Amino acid sequence: MLTAAVIARKRDGEALTADEWRDLVADVARGAVPDYQVAALLMAVVFRGLTPDELDALTDAMCASGSRLSFGPGTPPRVDKHSTGGIGDKTSLILAPLVASCGLAVPMISGRGLGHTGGTLDKLEAIPGFRTALTLDEARAQVERIGCVMLGQTADIAPADRHLYALRDATGTVESIPLIAASIMSKKLAEDLQGLVLDVKAGSGAFLPDPERGLMLARTMIALGAARGCPTVARITAMDRPLGHACGNALETEEALLALRGEWPDDLRDVTLCLGAEMLMAGGAADTEAQALDRLADALVSGAAADRCRDLIAAQGGNPAVVDDPAGLPQAAETDVWAAPREGIVTAVEPRTIGQGIIALGGGRRRMEDTVDPAVGFVITAKPGQRVERGEPLATIHARDAAGLAVGRQALDAAITIGDEPPLEILPLLGVRVTLEGTVEDGRGR
Amino acid sequence: MLTAAVIARKRDGEALTADEWRDLVADVARGAVPDYQVAALLMAVVFRGLTPDELDALTDAMCASGSRLSFGPGTPPRVDKHSTGGIGDKTSLILAPLVASCGLAVPMISGRGLGHTGGTLDKLEAIPGFRTALTLDEARAQVERIGCVMLGQTADIAPADRHLYALRDATGTVESIPLIAASIMSKKLAEDLQGLVLDVKAGSGAFLPDPERGLMLARTMIALGAARGCPTVARITAMDRPLGHACGNALETEEALLALRGEWPDDLRDVTLCLGAEMLMAGGAADTEAQALDRLADALVSGAAADRCRDLIAAQGGNPAVVDDPAGLPQAAETDVWAAPREGIVTAVEPRTIGQGIIALGGGRRRMEDTVDPAVGFVITAKPGQRVERGEPLATIHARDAAGLAVGRQALDAAITIGDEPPLEILPLLGVRVTLEGTVEDGRGR
Repeated sequence: MLTAAVIARKRDGEALTADEWRDLVADVARGAVPDYQVAALLMAVVFRGLTPDELDALTDAMCASGSRLSFGPGTPPRVDKHSTGGIGDKTSLILAPLVASCGLAVPMISGRGLGHTGGTLDKLEAIPGFRTALTLDEARAQVERIGCVMLGQTADIAPADRHLYALRDATGTVESIPLIAASIMSKKLAEDLQGLVLDVKAGSGAFLPDPERGLMLARTMIALGAARGCPTVARITAMDRPLGHACGNALETEEALLALRGEWPDDLRDVTLCLGAEMLMAGGAADTEAQALDRLADALVSGAAADRCRDLIAAQGGNPAVVDDPAGLPQAAETDVWAAPREGIVTAVEPRTIGQGIIALGGGRRRMEDTVDPAVGFVITAKPGQRVERGEPLATIHARDAAGLAVGRQALDAAITIGDEPPLEILPLLGVRVTLEGTVEDGRGR
Repeated sequence: MLTAAVIARKRDGEALTADEWRDLVADVARGAVPDYQVAALLMAVVFRGLTPDELDALTDAMCASGSRLSFGPGTPPRVDKHSTGGIGDKTSLILAPLVASCGLAVPMISGRGLGHTGGTLDKLEAIPGFRTALTLDEARAQVERIGCVMLGQTADIAPADRHLYALRDATGTVESIPLIAASIMSKKLAEDLQGLVLDVKAGSGAFLPDPERGLMLARTMIALGAARGCPTVARITAMDRPLGHACGNALETEEALLALRGEWPDDLRDVTLCLGAEMLMAGGAADTEAQALDRLADALVSGAAADRCRDLIAAQGGNPAVVDDPAGLPQAAETDVWAAPREGIVTAVEPRTIGQGIIALGGGRRRMEDTVDPAVGFVITAKPGQRVERGEPLATIHARDAAGLAVGRQALDAAITIGDEPPLEILPLLGVRVTLEGTVEDGRGR
């Protein structure tokens, strides 16, 4: 039982026992412990951290608090990708069908957008009819049939984590690396995976802007996965600017569908293929990155990836014709161009400001119960370091009405800055690769 | 409104604004903020502390959340004494009538025992008929009539503190010096005082055993009082052994009543007169300690203090005859002597163990809703450093029955240790005197 004395021990820097963490999670799952005691304990954890033993016990107990997916012996190896969240990141929509078309299974459980970052479920639901609220039985059957599924977290996966996350969100206790790691991994471990790829964002638009803390989170999750038969690898990727051009649910879905035909911005391509290659290697579908990249390219060029995407959309109630004609996606009533107000060099495209702009347009959530307008958002071609002429079109605003266009223009005015000198620092698009063995610089492009 | 963002600012070491503290306290008082958010904030305060400005705002807001006493222009200066709590500490019962008999007014609001420490209200209620649940109007009228009153905290004094204290008690957030200081001072400032004397206990039986932390608490409360027109002085006193001989409600009341006739153990006398002299000086009834001690001695010898105690008991529904014949107090059915098991020197009389023993006998509370048996307890004459013979009676157990005697014997066996060498350290009975100007060693006896 969680008592003031137990909380005080954690407060004073003592580790709680595995049994204490197990009991706590069980009590949270059945609503047998007051939220105020849990909240105080969570804040103590923010300050004191968790020992590896405590983290193991908490993660396992949260995972065990709910149901898990499990697949028959004939199912290909399962792999998944998890991102810590950013602006313009539509890689999941591309990777699930792409990796499945390379012979692996992808049982992908995703979240919704909250705060300045978008969410995969919201992007998928921009496809008319697309259902993300599947049961675990439906998800399993679909993976066994077409190799991939994209669903929302169900009530029966890690229910203790669900409750703890809501409490953390309300009490300023989200930003704790062990609590983040336990929360993510307790859900990913319920997917019965053979491999997991983490995309840990760095930079001003990331959930943890400080790359050092991102690295610590990556290492923590990698250790948790490795000890539980789910080899995990992480890539640190840039989120000091949006990824790709499209920012906003339907706009991002459109960009992802075009990507399956090989039409994509360079940065989106590089990050997607890097993560895809990691997924293929993690699932044993390729031995080297070069081999993996060849397989991915084949799947894209042959149309196998696009085929798999049509299967995925059809299986989940959507109209697969959007893959070939994205005009079937919701379209904003008004669009307008944002042009460079001066000649110079783009010094910043601030992702948080863009994310807030999407919310202001009605395309994001301030609170979990808000509904989102899928059609609104921005398409921003400007990238930091780019030389531009005065009046050069750098973005398009997609809004409901003229007032929305004004709101969007304001957001872009604040987000995109143009100066005389190149920006002092642009994060490498693909930063270090983190494995159980250590970290390796990628060295590739900006 | 208390939001996750506000909690996160405190978590990250930022000070909240005075308005934020005021709003929080107002919301707590009207139940408009979830306990889990408050609990998380309190834990962040345990780690980050409060700036002087934050502490001021919190204390004032808690005090302003309820009613306050106020007295007419003819009322003598009001003084009070507050102790951080210990075992065998019955000084309040002596000081209220004693100081009132010296011409000051003492509107004393006290608490109940919880955990290992006793509480003044429980001791008073050992007097048959004695009522501590007075309204503020009753309390004011009684002070104006006889110069003293001893009551429990009413629902309308600092209601926000009441709620916060209950939450701290359940969430391991009691041990924060600014939160303790704000809690005590918000209630004491509601008494309309001209002076306050703090008895901050040090040693193993104290709420804050570390004398440095006790000192910090004293300084914090002194600064709060000084800035609010309530000059405050603190004495650090020993609680590495019980104070006086009697430990248990009725037994302590009896010892206090005998003290008014000048029959008291040396240590109880020294602490009581020291605190009483501080009260007289604080209230302007004496200029020097020597003068104050003379006045106190006169009030005791003349019988004025005992007279005032009879008035006090009669005014609050008790039978004043107990002052002259303590046999009217509840008596335990069984008593037995505890004798020294060996020859040697008493090395410890551990107050926490004695306190737990009183609870085991039925005379204390584990939880606030427990009822207490006033009659049970111990009378312990042994003091650390005292040389004893084998078989020498050192204590008496007062219990309900034979089983209680066995429980009490066990507690004394654990609490009283006798060795060959004197104890390594005995805290000075009267440690430093702390004022706004600084600290002065007392230098008097052990």
